[in-house]
Amino acid sequence: MDNTPVHPAPSAPAAGGTTAVGRRRLLTGGALTLGGALAGAGIGAAAADGSGQAATAGEARRRETAYGTQKVPFHGRHQAGIATPAQAHAVFLGFELADRTDRAALGRMMRLLTDDAARLTQGEAALADTEAELAALPARLTVTFGFGPGLFEAAGLDDQRPASLAPLPRFPIDRLQDRWNGGDLLIQICADDPLSVAHAQRMLTKDARTFARLRWAQRGFRRGRGVQDEGATQHNLMGQLDGTANPAPGGDAFAKAVWTDAGPRWLRDGGTTLVLRRIRMELETWDAADTKAKEFTIGRRLGTGAPLTGTAETDPPDFDAKDALGFPVISEFAHIRRAHVGEERQHIFRRPYNYDDAPAADGRPDTGLLFASFQRDIGEQFLPIQRRLAASDLLNQWTTPIGSAVFAIPPGCAPGGWIGQTLLG
Amino acid sequence: MDNTPVHPAPSAPAAGGTTAVGRRRLLTGGALTLGGALAGAGIGAAAADGSGQAATAGEARRRETAYGTQKVPFHGRHQAGIATPAQAHAVFLGFELADRTDRAALGRMMRLLTDDAARLTQGEAALADTEAELAALPARLTVTFGFGPGLFEAAGLDDQRPASLAPLPRFPIDRLQDRWNGGDLLIQICADDPLSVAHAQRMLTKDARTFARLRWAQRGFRRGRGVQDEGATQHNLMGQLDGTANPAPGGDAFAKAVWTDAGPRWLRDGGTTLVLRRIRMELETWDAADTKAKEFTIGRRLGTGAPLTGTAETDPPDFDAKDALGFPVISEFAHIRRAHVGEERQHIFRRPYNYDDAPAADGRPDTGLLFASFQRDIGEQFLPIQRRLAASDLLNQWTTPIGSAVFAIPPGCAPGGWIGQTLLG
Ligand code: HEM
Ligand code: HEM
Repeated sequence: MDNTPVHPAPSAPAAGGTTAVGRRRLLTGGALTLGGALAGAGIGAAAADGSGQAATAGEARRRETAYGTQKVPFHGRHQAGIATPAQAHAVFLGFELADRTDRAALGRMMRLLTDDAARLTQGEAALADTEAELAALPARLTVTFGFGPGLFEAAGLDDQRPASLAPLPRFPIDRLQDRWNGGDLLIQICADDPLSVAHAQRMLTKDARTFARLRWAQRGFRRGRGVQDEGATQHNLMGQLDGTANPAPGGDAFAKAVWTDAGPRWLRDGGTTLVLRRIRMELETWDAADTKAKEFTIGRRLGTGAPLTGTAETDPPDFDAKDALGFPVISEFAHIRRAHVGEERQHIFRRPYNYDDAPAADGRPDTGLLFASFQRDIGEQFLPIQRRLAASDLLNQWTTPIGSAVFAIPPGCAPGGWIGQTLLG
Repeated sequence: MDNTPVHPAPSAPAAGGTTAVGRRRLLTGGALTLGGALAGAGIGAAAADGSGQAATAGEARRRETAYGTQKVPFHGRHQAGIATPAQAHAVFLGFELADRTDRAALGRMMRLLTDDAARLTQGEAALADTEAELAALPARLTVTFGFGPGLFEAAGLDDQRPASLAPLPRFPIDRLQDRWNGGDLLIQICADDPLSVAHAQRMLTKDARTFARLRWAQRGFRRGRGVQDEGATQHNLMGQLDGTANPAPGGDAFAKAVWTDAGPRWLRDGGTTLVLRRIRMELETWDAADTKAKEFTIGRRLGTGAPLTGTAETDPPDFDAKDALGFPVISEFAHIRRAHVGEERQHIFRRPYNYDDAPAADGRPDTGLLFASFQRDIGEQFLPIQRRLAASDLLNQWTTPIGSAVFAIPPGCAPGGWIGQTLLG
């Protein structure tokens, strides 16, 4: 193995000085090259199935280097960006189809966009790429397409729309703003590098805009890659560990909960649905609550994420436990009790991102969660949970849904195929 | 050395399964602990002086792990966030002082903000921290304070204002929007983790708002940490390698160019000045230009970053070279010729971030550079360059300044002291 730099990016040394950079290359080149080779061989994908634990300490360490060259395979039974361990950065783009965009046009659009995504995710320039240099470091870039209710109408295929793929009913807790609602076409772009996301967004938007107008763009983030242990639950901006009781990607429970196995043929065998809710966090009043109240609200501790009836994050909550006075330890109205579902098949898979836009002049934050959940069927899985939460969840005092959108997520495709072909082809 | 996890964050295993996480900890624990210890011992700081090349391959590898626990020292002769190798994420906050905020109030404000910054950057909760969990992983968090022209007036200290610290003259290329201009107080927050930036922003904004209103917040990003070799020049969103001919932090040339050594006593011995320009990139027309035109515009190649008269990024440009027809190889109007300064002492130090806000409905991007430059003196160093560029720089066709602000950056402080004490104390 030589010490050729693994980055396809320009390899000239930086201003810092030829010698210094050259020396660093020499020192780390071997490990980086190996890291790059592993990534190229689909280690990113291995991690994606949730079982990608490192076999040796050496391998574990190598996997933490050269994040830029890591790739997630584009082709396959499912689209990437669902079971893929959540990348650090995401943008959700919601488009509205132009009047003239009919079934044939949709087919052309999806062929184009699929081709862009297949290339960009593998570190290659898109066909019409005018800043090709920016494609070289995908950093686990994934592009995931979704079809909103309006797309079926535009295509004259309303009979192919999954029965529960419709705007969610208005809940009393909602304060929806039209600017964050709906959308006929979703492009979800995720990567561990914000530059990679920005470049993919630009390329895909350029090709989509012949067919559609951008309705909204929602940027989100999680911890930077390498900031904490991979696989460890992350904090959201309310300071809670968010994601504990989530089906583990790649597992059997995940597959049963996420991949659609009924309804229109075109969506089965690899498809799913996405609910995207933009939920504002009322941090001003949340700040005023004390730790006890905060923990009571969720039913879990802030520090450890343990249920109030346990000591470790993974302890199963005991919903029957009572305190000395006979009151339930986990309140009847605690978020995790209201959201809890027994049967694995009825679980939802949450893949949320934080958002934090510019605060108001008086300092009030514009902060919240891009709540994204994947499930076989929205009506069967998401709606019952959301109804229970809307009816009485202590967390409602501090969270406000301000945007809502639903999408069918077509199955993946093989090389030569395109996303949406089973519907539009 | 044991395998205690280095993260002060909750150490409970994730939903992925106790065994898997436990095993991963066991495998990587040693290396991570060492990485953490190194970070604690100020390796982040060693990197900050630009001379922190790894002594062994092992050390280089370890430094790439556990980015979250890495700390940049807060106290010192200079504020952090200037010579600190640019972190992946930044937000620049521009505040306008409230009418009642006089010199005494400014002193109270800066004591408060200094205390917040000193704690948060070291991974400790701020005194009034209501989401203390979010402070645990600073990820090289730095907080840098700056004083705009209006602050001197409010403090009744206009005689202490550096002579050239005033709103920049209007240039013919400017299309300034008032919403991005000015500001009496700057808080620049940088970290390798967007959550760390968001939390610090929230804490500092909460404490600043008794004294000031937020005028603007500008979010920016560079490559994610670990995405490419540290120290290698990064691409901006025009696809150019941006940062080649920049003084190397920590070096002698850097010190001569950046640390103010004349003018008001309070700013000398560790202070500097910042010019922040929000510069939109006209990507729509830039895309239409071919590679030759793009390279001619800058005077450097897109792929390698080499000057048109050389082959490697670090080759010094030969401004006298002529082509076969007798024309200069690097155009008279190329950006690097117009921006070039011979004398080291007159250089500026650029520490820019990319911005990429939501595109318009028709897909037009809202993309550009948060151009940030540090220099001893704005009038002596920045202005002559900016005047030459404004007069005739080919790049002007594709870039538009839409925001402008200037700040004096006070020296750092010792433990027990506070930023701005030499002016306001
Ligand atoms: C800003 C809004 C929300 C916040 C901050 C939030 C936060 C949390 C937290 C801290 C937990 C406990 C840890 C975990 O298992 O992840 C949790 C659990 C859960 N949340 Fe939410 N949540 C929000 C909205 C929602 C919504 C809209 C839904 C679905 C309609 C939902 C469904 C769930 C489910 C299914 C669980 C797991 C319950 C269990 O079985 O233990 N959450 N959430
Ligand atoms: C969006 C706006 C801008 C872009 C895209 C841009 C891009 C570049 C690029 C690609 C280079 C060559 C590589 C390098 O040395 O970094 C460069 C060099 C430089 N730029 Fe800019 N620049 C912008 C605005 C400015 C402004 C406003 C100034 C100062 C007023 C400036 C000052 C410089 C200097 C001093 C150099 C180094 C010149 C030399 O000595 O070779 N740039 N810029």
